[in-house]
Amino acid sequence: MKTVFIKNVLLNGTKTNIRISGNLFSEIDPSLVPTENDELIEADNFAIVPPFYNAHTHAAMSLLRGYADDMALFPWLNDYIWPFEAKMTADDIYIGTRLAILEMIKSGTVFYNDMYWMMDSVWKATDEMGIRACLGVSFMDFLGEEKIQKSFDLVEEYLHKSPMIQMSVAPHAPYTVSDKLWIRCADFAKQHHTIMHFHLSETEKEVKDCVAEHGMTPVRWLDSLGVLGPNCIAAHVVHVDEEEIQILKKRGVAIAHNPVSNMKLSSGFFKSALMEQSSSNVLIGTDGCSSNNNLDMIEESKFAAMIAKCNYGSETLPVNTVIDWSVKNGPKVFGLNGGEIAVGKLADALLINMNNERFVPNFNFNSNWIYASSCEAIDTMICNGKIVMRNRHVNGEEEIISSAKQCAKKWM
Amino acid sequence: MKTVFIKNVLLNGTKTNIRISGNLFSEIDPSLVPTENDELIEADNFAIVPPFYNAHTHAAMSLLRGYADDMALFPWLNDYIWPFEAKMTADDIYIGTRLAILEMIKSGTVFYNDMYWMMDSVWKATDEMGIRACLGVSFMDFLGEEKIQKSFDLVEEYLHKSPMIQMSVAPHAPYTVSDKLWIRCADFAKQHHTIMHFHLSETEKEVKDCVAEHGMTPVRWLDSLGVLGPNCIAAHVVHVDEEEIQILKKRGVAIAHNPVSNMKLSSGFFKSALMEQSSSNVLIGTDGCSSNNNLDMIEESKFAAMIAKCNYGSETLPVNTVIDWSVKNGPKVFGLNGGEIAVGKLADALLINMNNERFVPNFNFNSNWIYASSCEAIDTMICNGKIVMRNRHVNGEEEIISSAKQCAKKWM
Repeated sequence: MKTVFIKNVLLNGTKTNIRISGNLFSEIDPSLVPTENDELIEADNFAIVPPFYNAHTHAAMSLLRGYADDMALFPWLNDYIWPFEAKMTADDIYIGTRLAILEMIKSGTVFYNDMYWMMDSVWKATDEMGIRACLGVSFMDFLGEEKIQKSFDLVEEYLHKSPMIQMSVAPHAPYTVSDKLWIRCADFAKQHHTIMHFHLSETEKEVKDCVAEHGMTPVRWLDSLGVLGPNCIAAHVVHVDEEEIQILKKRGVAIAHNPVSNMKLSSGFFKSALMEQSSSNVLIGTDGCSSNNNLDMIEESKFAAMIAKCNYGSETLPVNTVIDWSVKNGPKVFGLNGGEIAVGKLADALLINMNNERFVPNFNFNSNWIYASSCEAIDTMICNGKIVMRNRHVNGEEEIISSAKQCAKKWM
Repeated sequence: MKTVFIKNVLLNGTKTNIRISGNLFSEIDPSLVPTENDELIEADNFAIVPPFYNAHTHAAMSLLRGYADDMALFPWLNDYIWPFEAKMTADDIYIGTRLAILEMIKSGTVFYNDMYWMMDSVWKATDEMGIRACLGVSFMDFLGEEKIQKSFDLVEEYLHKSPMIQMSVAPHAPYTVSDKLWIRCADFAKQHHTIMHFHLSETEKEVKDCVAEHGMTPVRWLDSLGVLGPNCIAAHVVHVDEEEIQILKKRGVAIAHNPVSNMKLSSGFFKSALMEQSSSNVLIGTDGCSSNNNLDMIEESKFAAMIAKCNYGSETLPVNTVIDWSVKNGPKVFGLNGGEIAVGKLADALLINMNNERFVPNFNFNSNWIYASSCEAIDTMICNGKIVMRNRHVNGEEEIISSAKQCAKKWM
């Protein structure tokens, strides 16, 4: 069995040696010595940390980066985003997803929770690039029964194809999915033990429209349908009251907070302090590149902390809680044995260059990591025991960049 | 005269050739050819843009990065920041400033507007590292007459020592500077044609206290003293009403907006839309590393745009206006012939790697630059015709990092 030996690395402030056997951390001990069977990483100037989980994105939308900005929501969607997406082929989605995964690896994300369509293309890109994902196939009533059934079939087809890639059902949002389809998605998810991933209470308009149509807010409506449970990941969750936060908590729903997207689209500020106080199961996501416009989880985590502090006081959401949201809660929600550099855990890791100027001085590593650093400080990413980036180079990145440039030309 | 030739570079979307003679852009023309006298930069995959102006910082506070976070303002100041600063020597300030300038160069900042003390140390670090600055010597009544007079002497001594480094008077804030000292600083600044740089209306408490003490808000109080003018740079300016914004505009005061610091310390959100509508002379600054915790003007500009959009609508502060604030308004305020890549302008420039994943696709360069990119995409910085960073390496950076690490040990 192939082993990797990380020599003299800083783990939680102390120098040690780490061996990875297969896809797990097998030994952590300062007295370990490398053998001939070890692939050796000299890590004298590096710290090791668990990577980020991006809890809500639409990876292929990397192709729409900078296509339309600084606009009101509806002209942005109607005149730019939807017409662009209508032209996207399966190959475009493959190319856009590879570009997104390249950016995610470079910025320290080892797992992403996606929602899009033509998810066979997304699966292929993810499988090739070697990171983890949960791929949500979108459901909306307007697609019609034939496409809806095909989407359920696609989830089933890919369900067990790779231990690295989960599949999920993704009923788009309360305003695009009927009660019947919500229940059908939830039943399917229960039956197949999958995640159910959806947008929830993102804008004030959504809440008002839901009250007008169903006589209750989106959270209460979904709860009344009996579809909320611990397999649910609700993205955004901006316009909710305290009782709704308690409903979500009671049902075990995980909440994917997307600070930049909510700010850029003027959706509103997340109720950070209420979520923190209620110990809700909060994750952090970047959303798609069209409303961000990157997939950088360091930046996203900093935004989460800063809006919490500005709205609720400077002691709100201290850095270790932000790291829980962007690193540690993800593995729990997705049922993965990760999120920690410890013996027996999945060998997912980042090596951070402690000579990068953003880590000097090093009074508080976590504070430097979230409040000061940039992706450039991440030298190496290991995923499932395999080195996917070393010295900031990802295999094949030149071709990924050139094919994405070529692909985008048809929209120029 | 030494010349630099930048070959086949993307300028505002078009490939061209650029020659720098001395400290100016002397020729820009796609038909130019390099000669033997030119230092040649092959720039096939690069775009050229003017660098950032950081309009408010305390550079030496890089040494306090991560020393204290997630705390309420007064325990943070009283128990951590001030005791740390009380121990800082002239050498510490030199070392901290070099660390800060290294980080600024790496993240595309060519000019910084500083406020601190022992400014001879700050001057030395800046002069050695070859970027531009305006160095503000702090004034507060509690220092006493002897130190105050020495500070005025220091400003005079360094006033014309380098064409790259301006000196300014920096009366700290309305709550630390008496009417007499404000007037003395303003008179000195007028007499010596310097900038006057100060904190203004940063917190709600400051405004309340000023009203209690002087019967008016800080802006109105300073205006009543007759000290406001076009040589003034007021940092923060969070808690102001519309009339105060008009007073500042009428007096020609430039406003240094510090989005991250205001959020991290829970000071409040900048009145972005009112500032934009009033065409106030707004600049962007990072503040010091203890309240940010970096000096990254890409990130700071993105924060400025995002808080504007979240609070006032997604069309507020479009990307080109953000660039005016963080790049173009600076040279005007500081009387420099820069902020633009054009013949006859100061040869300050960044070369951006267009193969960096954050610039793919390239539908809108400015949007990619501010909303998507990271410092890693900046390959080269030219300041005053000299190359200060190439291929992301700054001369002497290893020594700067190691001496800063060593220096910080006394606080560990």
